[in-house]
Amino acid sequence: MKNPKLRAFIPLFYIVWSDDLLTQKEFLTLQEFIGSQNWLSEKEKELLFSKVNVLAPPSREQLVHWKSEIEKIIQDKPSVKCIFDISIILSENDKTVVDLRPAFVELENDLGILGEEVIGDFKKTAVIFTSNYKTVKRFDTEILTQILDGKEAAIIKKVKSVISRPEFAYETSTDTDVYREKVYDWCKILAEENLGNMAYPKQYGGGGNLADYFAIMETLSYHDLSLVIKFGVQFGLWGMSIQSLGTEKHYIKYLKDIGSLKLTGCFAMTETNHGSNVKGLETMATYNHDDQTFTIHTPNENAQKEYIGNAANHGQMATVFAKLMIGGNDYGINAFIVPLRATNGNILKGITIGDCGLKMGLNGVDNGTIRFEKVVVPKENMLDRFASINESGEFESPIPSDNRRFFTMLGTLVGGRIGIPRSALAAAKSGLTIAILYSDKRRQFGPEGGSEVPILNYRMHQRRLIPLLAKTYAVHFALQYLTNRFINKNECEMQEIEALAAGMKAYSTWSTRDTLQECREACGGKGYLSENRIDALKNDTEIYTTFEGDNTVLMQLVAKNRLSEFRKSFGEMDAMGIINYVYENTKTAISEKNPIATRKTDDEHLLDD
Amino acid sequence: MKNPKLRAFIPLFYIVWSDDLLTQKEFLTLQEFIGSQNWLSEKEKELLFSKVNVLAPPSREQLVHWKSEIEKIIQDKPSVKCIFDISIILSENDKTVVDLRPAFVELENDLGILGEEVIGDFKKTAVIFTSNYKTVKRFDTEILTQILDGKEAAIIKKVKSVISRPEFAYETSTDTDVYREKVYDWCKILAEENLGNMAYPKQYGGGGNLADYFAIMETLSYHDLSLVIKFGVQFGLWGMSIQSLGTEKHYIKYLKDIGSLKLTGCFAMTETNHGSNVKGLETMATYNHDDQTFTIHTPNENAQKEYIGNAANHGQMATVFAKLMIGGNDYGINAFIVPLRATNGNILKGITIGDCGLKMGLNGVDNGTIRFEKVVVPKENMLDRFASINESGEFESPIPSDNRRFFTMLGTLVGGRIGIPRSALAAAKSGLTIAILYSDKRRQFGPEGGSEVPILNYRMHQRRLIPLLAKTYAVHFALQYLTNRFINKNECEMQEIEALAAGMKAYSTWSTRDTLQECREACGGKGYLSENRIDALKNDTEIYTTFEGDNTVLMQLVAKNRLSEFRKSFGEMDAMGIINYVYENTKTAISEKNPIATRKTDDEHLLDD
Repeated sequence: MKNPKLRAFIPLFYIVWSDDLLTQKEFLTLQEFIGSQNWLSEKEKELLFSKVNVLAPPSREQLVHWKSEIEKIIQDKPSVKCIFDISIILSENDKTVVDLRPAFVELENDLGILGEEVIGDFKKTAVIFTSNYKTVKRFDTEILTQILDGKEAAIIKKVKSVISRPEFAYETSTDTDVYREKVYDWCKILAEENLGNMAYPKQYGGGGNLADYFAIMETLSYHDLSLVIKFGVQFGLWGMSIQSLGTEKHYIKYLKDIGSLKLTGCFAMTETNHGSNVKGLETMATYNHDDQTFTIHTPNENAQKEYIGNAANHGQMATVFAKLMIGGNDYGINAFIVPLRATNGNILKGITIGDCGLKMGLNGVDNGTIRFEKVVVPKENMLDRFASINESGEFESPIPSDNRRFFTMLGTLVGGRIGIPRSALAAAKSGLTIAILYSDKRRQFGPEGGSEVPILNYRMHQRRLIPLLAKTYAVHFALQYLTNRFINKNECEMQEIEALAAGMKAYSTWSTRDTLQECREACGGKGYLSENRIDALKNDTEIYTTFEGDNTVLMQLVAKNRLSEFRKSFGEMDAMGIINYVYENTKTAISEKNPIATRKTDDEHLLDD
Repeated sequence: MKNPKLRAFIPLFYIVWSDDLLTQKEFLTLQEFIGSQNWLSEKEKELLFSKVNVLAPPSREQLVHWKSEIEKIIQDKPSVKCIFDISIILSENDKTVVDLRPAFVELENDLGILGEEVIGDFKKTAVIFTSNYKTVKRFDTEILTQILDGKEAAIIKKVKSVISRPEFAYETSTDTDVYREKVYDWCKILAEENLGNMAYPKQYGGGGNLADYFAIMETLSYHDLSLVIKFGVQFGLWGMSIQSLGTEKHYIKYLKDIGSLKLTGCFAMTETNHGSNVKGLETMATYNHDDQTFTIHTPNENAQKEYIGNAANHGQMATVFAKLMIGGNDYGINAFIVPLRATNGNILKGITIGDCGLKMGLNGVDNGTIRFEKVVVPKENMLDRFASINESGEFESPIPSDNRRFFTMLGTLVGGRIGIPRSALAAAKSGLTIAILYSDKRRQFGPEGGSEVPILNYRMHQRRLIPLLAKTYAVHFALQYLTNRFINKNECEMQEIEALAAGMKAYSTWSTRDTLQECREACGGKGYLSENRIDALKNDTEIYTTFEGDNTVLMQLVAKNRLSEFRKSFGEMDAMGIINYVYENTKTAISEKNPIATRKTDDEHLLDD
């Protein structure tokens, strides 16, 4: 096209043929525009129509030529602001063309190519990342690790060293039996290293260090979550039920062997029909004063114990929660030690074990069902710290209310609601480490002509992961606080600590669920391959929101506790006090709901360079 | 306690000993109160102190006696409104006691037992659900099914009948090889039933019915999601790539055998280094005009094809996307048919296949990696609908821009972004069916003395599941709309339909992710057992948010499209028009953000009875 007037159309032609956003509809728009220009001769119109004929597109060479003409103009004249400015220059300032600005601007608007950003596409100078790009460390990770590990640094180091041994290589078999045995073997090694008995009193062969026990739980969770749950079932649930609900005679008889894994056991509370509402458990323990025994019995199929860890394969005994019956009277839920297997592994008479089979995760833990068919155990097998039967066969307890006694018993077991969220926390840390390291390496898209950019450089990707990282730090310190409160508790604080543990268990496990979900998606296809571990982290922790107290139910406990506390606080306030209280809380709630608006600082650019 | 004055304390004593919410702190409060009452003699105080001594609790019989006294009063006198009203009656209207109302009220407040609800706990009459409780059907499910199935009712019925056959029993083996072969066998049955070739033109042995094809995809998803993905890879991705990107000669040669599963194949687009940014694919197809062949080559390890379905075990051929090079010039990404295996299953020379191994889900699909070491294929293996090489060895295309051509090719493959969200929809439907049916049976907690209540009766549980059910219906009809738009499209609408498909794919798969998460948690421990299927539904659909276009990237495409459209719309508006537009959109946004506040009706009680 030599005719300068007609050259005004070159930018439009180039854009409609090259841009992948324009459609046939836009071609029609352009044809209509050309047809309506009275200043063009019929011959000129014909020539222009030939350039926007879908059946006869310009050659590849033609396109390249147009492009270079346009780019040359843009580079030479920084004053060029829109497509029409290029048209004017190409038309050599033809008077007719200059007067057409309003018509061209309307057309460009119809085509969606109005404005500076279209020119920007031609101008774009690539900001090229050199291929030896490396993220720079901005802080001393050693110091941060010291702060995170605190006083438990030594035991954390020991656990990390143990699980780094070759025998702790991940089990990759999909055969559940193989996986269960591997996890059992790992537990034996941990017991040999005196890690299992850490929480038990020293006089019964334990380590006497509850803080270290929780740190062990958390650190093991960096390895394999089936391991930590099997470990928690054996040394936490089974062992601690003896320690919390039993008395001297039980400690002497059992704790040492539990700590060394010589005596494996289960915590048999949940039944098929009763999970959250454990007050309604139906398993019965009927006392017979004649021979001073209890008969443990499952009255119906749905009263079987379910999901019980260590039951399917390895447990020799169980702490069984059952309704105590004496002389036809119901004395509420109490706990009893019931043998399940002989030392040779054979299941004992009256005991029926089922296997929960394949689960979404934690397949290294042998969860099972247990039924009791009139199983007789001696009187001393009652865990009698909170209730006992005296020499005359009468029930005795310092806590007369059955409900209150049961909830006191449950209260002593609150440690599980600290161990589980700390394990969940470790899983979130692992997931974030995997996802953030990957997104610092993975490159996708980038400026025209430049290298692709690490996806962590995208604002979108930072927004997905970095707030979750910050939250995980917050949960870390919150769980440290909870642990310290629990370890140093006095009787008066128990109710508050129980509510705190319930709330933190729910909050932390939900946070881990959301974090690992985002990590999976942020890693794309790689996040779906089992070898990259997000699979196991996600599926193993999936049940954390359910076990040790269903999160939804726990949150209602927290609400109940908070409302009681508020009622007390309000009772002590005058009208002005209440107004101030509501004002302060509203202020906090609003600023918390608006974290981005209020906290938008330069920090978010930190990762850009 | 015979002294009427002292009997005023009975309700307090009963509550502190029976209520599981009061702590030692409250005992101290009560002791302090007693100590400060000057109207009591020292002896009377001593007696009262003895009742709140933690070391000497009242007997169980004492508690029962107190309780029955209180209950009797409450039943006889409906006017009783608070604990102190009971105290007055027990004290036989003792003048001293009556005057103590302010002091007692303050004490009750401190103890957190002020108010009618405490009395309510005594009054509570159990609303007992008869054990033969059954949810009543309120609507005709037949009619609803007709509306949902629409014109595809016949094919849906056929698919349901096929997948109900005994040979479609779920595969429970954890051995990936066993599962993969089972899914392959299922695909053979579906091909025999003429379900695989449903979308292909009739003249090439197909069913010529795209609407039915999508209905088949959705219905198969009620069975097993590995099956539907394997099915989609073979008949959708592999077959439709031939149909959409090839020409007559390819249809004649391949379509019939693909539809009958005689010719298995892959869709080899994604590379290790390029998933979202497919424009950057590095696999090369170099044209040699001397012998009229292409040499397919993987230039580096990270340019290998990855996650390719059908690659690890069964694919005989693949549609390979590669950068076309002619005489040293790059002509952008084009598609080529490349044989991978001989008919006996042996991998051909120059081809290296890897196995993606265990994945979070979809383990019945044999995803693999493919590398090409200078593999030579004849010229006719280029899928040449949008570009070809002429007799002189020159590149020819009706679409001169390489980018535009590639995105046009991708546009023809948009069907995958309809099949996948429809499959995701079916998974959400399955999950909700499982969770809602279970929660109508599962009972937990209930009124004192009454039966436990189905958990679906709890407002909380309804709020968890019912909005998701409503959303799933909405997504159903939205995807029907999208399918119809796609089937009846004209060229001008393609861009809008592509944006709609991208948006619905992202929205629907995220919705399924959230729905199945809630279903899992709502089913508690049962939701974690693989036998109840939420495991598979959740883990199989987990990757739906990533494949067929990463959701986050798709949403950016949608945003780009919407912004272009808005720019056009705004261009045509005057100032008043823009103000009206913003007003209407704001109104909608606000009412949508507030669905509960604006739609709280009696409907939410429907499930209560």
